[in-house]
Amino acid sequence: MNQLVIGGKTLQSRLLIGTGKFPDKKIVPEVVEASGTQVVTMALRRVDLDSKEDNLLDYIPKHCTLLPNTSGARNADEAVRIARLARTMGCGNWVKIEVISDNKYLLPDNMETVRATEILAKEGFVVLPYMNPDLMSAKRLVDAGAATVMPLGAPIGTNRGIRTKELIQIIIEEIDIPVVVDAGIGRPSEAAEAMEMGADAVLVNTAIATANSPVHMGKAFHLAVQAGRLAYEAQLGRQSTYGNASSPLTGFLYEGVNS
Amino acid sequence: MNQLVIGGKTLQSRLLIGTGKFPDKKIVPEVVEASGTQVVTMALRRVDLDSKEDNLLDYIPKHCTLLPNTSGARNADEAVRIARLARTMGCGNWVKIEVISDNKYLLPDNMETVRATEILAKEGFVVLPYMNPDLMSAKRLVDAGAATVMPLGAPIGTNRGIRTKELIQIIIEEIDIPVVVDAGIGRPSEAAEAMEMGADAVLVNTAIATANSPVHMGKAFHLAVQAGRLAYEAQLGRQSTYGNASSPLTGFLYEGVNS
Amino acid sequence: MNQLVIGGKTLQSRLLIGTGKFPDKKIVPEVVEASGTQVVTMALRRVDLDSKEDNLLDYIPKHCTLLPNTSGARNADEAVRIARLARTMGCGNWVKIEVISDNKYLLPDNMETVRATEILAKEGFVVLPYMNPDLMSAKRLVDAGAATVMPLGAPIGTNRGIRTKELIQIIIEEIDIPVVVDAGIGRPSEAAEAMEMGADAVLVNTAIATANSPVHMGKAFHLAVQAGRLAYEAQLGRQSTYGNASSPLTGFLYEGVNS
Amino acid sequence: MNQLVIGGKTLQSRLLIGTGKFPDKKIVPEVVEASGTQVVTMALRRVDLDSKEDNLLDYIPKHCTLLPNTSGARNADEAVRIARLARTMGCGNWVKIEVISDNKYLLPDNMETVRATEILAKEGFVVLPYMNPDLMSAKRLVDAGAATVMPLGAPIGTNRGIRTKELIQIIIEEIDIPVVVDAGIGRPSEAAEAMEMGADAVLVNTAIATANSPVHMGKAFHLAVQAGRLAYEAQLGRQSTYGNASSPLTGFLYEGVNS
Repeated sequence: MNQLVIGGKTLQSRLLIGTGKFPDKKIVPEVVEASGTQVVTMALRRVDLDSKEDNLLDYIPKHCTLLPNTSGARNADEAVRIARLARTMGCGNWVKIEVISDNKYLLPDNMETVRATEILAKEGFVVLPYMNPDLMSAKRLVDAGAATVMPLGAPIGTNRGIRTKELIQIIIEEIDIPVVVDAGIGRPSEAAEAMEMGADAVLVNTAIATANSPVHMGKAFHLAVQAGRLAYEAQLGRQSTYGNASSPLTGFLYEGVNS
Repeated sequence: MNQLVIGGKTLQSRLLIGTGKFPDKKIVPEVVEASGTQVVTMALRRVDLDSKEDNLLDYIPKHCTLLPNTSGARNADEAVRIARLARTMGCGNWVKIEVISDNKYLLPDNMETVRATEILAKEGFVVLPYMNPDLMSAKRLVDAGAATVMPLGAPIGTNRGIRTKELIQIIIEEIDIPVVVDAGIGRPSEAAEAMEMGADAVLVNTAIATANSPVHMGKAFHLAVQAGRLAYEAQLGRQSTYGNASSPLTGFLYEGVNS
Repeated sequence: MNQLVIGGKTLQSRLLIGTGKFPDKKIVPEVVEASGTQVVTMALRRVDLDSKEDNLLDYIPKHCTLLPNTSGARNADEAVRIARLARTMGCGNWVKIEVISDNKYLLPDNMETVRATEILAKEGFVVLPYMNPDLMSAKRLVDAGAATVMPLGAPIGTNRGIRTKELIQIIIEEIDIPVVVDAGIGRPSEAAEAMEMGADAVLVNTAIATANSPVHMGKAFHLAVQAGRLAYEAQLGRQSTYGNASSPLTGFLYEGVNS
Repeated sequence: MNQLVIGGKTLQSRLLIGTGKFPDKKIVPEVVEASGTQVVTMALRRVDLDSKEDNLLDYIPKHCTLLPNTSGARNADEAVRIARLARTMGCGNWVKIEVISDNKYLLPDNMETVRATEILAKEGFVVLPYMNPDLMSAKRLVDAGAATVMPLGAPIGTNRGIRTKELIQIIIEEIDIPVVVDAGIGRPSEAAEAMEMGADAVLVNTAIATANSPVHMGKAFHLAVQAGRLAYEAQLGRQSTYGNASSPLTGFLYEGVNS
């Protein structure tokens, strides 16, 4: 299996998970374990560093790479400041850029995202930008020094699946850095499909966090991502229009018996 | 996890596989192993019982339940004769009924399939009928004593996926015996999807046999079926139309810093 | 344009409409007019022949062919009796067979439908059977003397569109009598799509009757059906994977200006 | 019917057509006539103004508004120059901005498109920018003074349909200037669907130009666009999951007869 390398780290797991929306943060370690993930994203707010109380960070296993996100940023400058703050606070130098000023569909602002990526990559961050699926923006993100591109399958938190396949497939073909499908994936089958399309990884949050059993759902995504990747590497067979017999159609056995 | 029971046997694996189209039957044991399957279907012709030579049966591990199919049968009578012959020859009392007279799309004949099921169930066979997805035919198959119903996702061997979701979903809801989606499944994501829909199992042949690496593809389907079943049992979250923030949207952290 | 002939009648319009669910039957003539339809189906119950009062039949323009349906029939015998009654009452010799015993999804019973078709065709009826999309049943309906086959796109009244394309496309290719897509069509675009697939006609009821403006919706379907048929006859272009410039891509004009 | 107004002109037809790829430009007037279009786009190169020979412009009926496009432009500056040149040459002040540097999928560059729009709108052009479907870019185009936004359904010339529905639907809801779906529409049903979604118009070129009969296909699109718009205004009914009887299900008539 080809390995996934992001920001110099080799990852065994192609499933990144988010930590928002969990009914109880105490469940996070178990979900992380079940999902096999090695990269966990969280909003800085949830980190709540000053607090003496329960802190989300305490629940993220140490072997995971933290991926602070800039949730709440409405433009590049805000994203940059949040990223710097996260690093200062000891969250490491990975950052997921989210620049969102659309409060209804939470769609990202590609132009501001490119700008933030450029600044942060120069400052040594490993930048994973969340983006609207758009080839030219993806090319600009590569030029800006992004470590991955993270096109959305559907609006955040909708569980609507990969509705933007047409555009993501092109990004996968044309972009040389890892492509991580982020947002919209609501079912393991959709994660598998992203991998079959050739995506390098997926990021899932809502689908796991809002399942009746997040731990089992984490496990389900773990398996599905492996399944999809294996299938991609084992090369899927072609589709055909007409039926193709798996078994012989002539009833010779019966005929033999009959005669 | 609820268990799958067919014909009195409790199955750990919800993936049934077919043995047609493999480039070399020597690979079958390895595929069976990778796929985790416990039920293997084969056309009687391939069994080639008289032959002293290489025999497909020799390659099917002993822990698997044999599922001879009536491939080649064009009507109920032919199917019945093939089934009886298989039992006589020592292939056990499971049978997958395929009655096909359409040579282009290989679509099954539900009416004849019901008739064959009725006869064979009375003779003590465990009958798994391949069918066009049709609720009323499924009800008749239940009445006729079928052990499962096996509606098609798309014509045999096409790898076109589950194109008949609308009808299969209804069968899953309305029929109380196990529903096995058979034919058409071309990718692990599609097998996962069938399981997420609530299907009890899937049968896959072409997608595995014609992959570049059948063993890896068998493994991929193994994982995908588990993923889909786990997701079904962990209860998928709902879809929504608008975006739902996984992370807080108000940039208070930045604002705090800024002030 | 190839002409549509059913039961010896040449029809200019490929849109058949139903009369159930209209908020007020007084609107029927206007809808018929807007839709351009020449064939109108109605349940016998609505005809209410004895009644001195408002009668649906009075609202169906005389130039339309009446297509009484056997709605309410749970088996072939009941369908046959309803059909005979309709003819006796002067509704003509066309009949749409609906045999439904599934009260949740209202899916038709193909086996009983074939039986009813056989009986009624022999009695001189022009039989248009509503069916689950299934090639072998369609072949039996042809053999039984059906004037058309009417496979469903989705359950009656759901407006879910043509979810059974895979199976209907095969019926269109393999069956020589007219194929009328019935049930499920919820939007004019879906009616157009059925026609582009090569269907001979569509039957629409709920989508028109429950629109905010049934008359305008009738007109919309009228146009869409013509559009789809015209496109089918004008032969659609192929799909391609890569972009194909409609206009020249080399900026020679600019270059010329620049030099 | 709400009217479509672009650049101060009230348009009766919501179908814009392109002139590339026609086998013979002599057919253009007939296609224009059949399609009912009032806006015709063409690449400047094809206009070939100096030439004494056959000129595409001579074939575009005078009642149509010319929409020169900037095909061939690889950045904003080139697009601006082509637009100015077109105006100088007497092609009027409408311009469709196409900025494309991706030669494989021909996907537009939103960032450069915004820049070109800003410049040209200030110079009094009526600017119709072709774009990747992206809400934030659409908002910037509005701010830049665009007369419409023209998101793509699929790559130019592919006839693949509206594969970006998820993103276009959001643009339709959130953007107040007319939304014209451009590129990818391959069938009349897809044009109808765009209109049902609430798009204000569609632009079609390849699907008409490469049909076996462009004139009939132009007519088909004409009807389909009207159908879709009418349906949008007549308000489509809802989808439901279960069947809803169009006709009464209780067989009382038969029962009456029977008794």
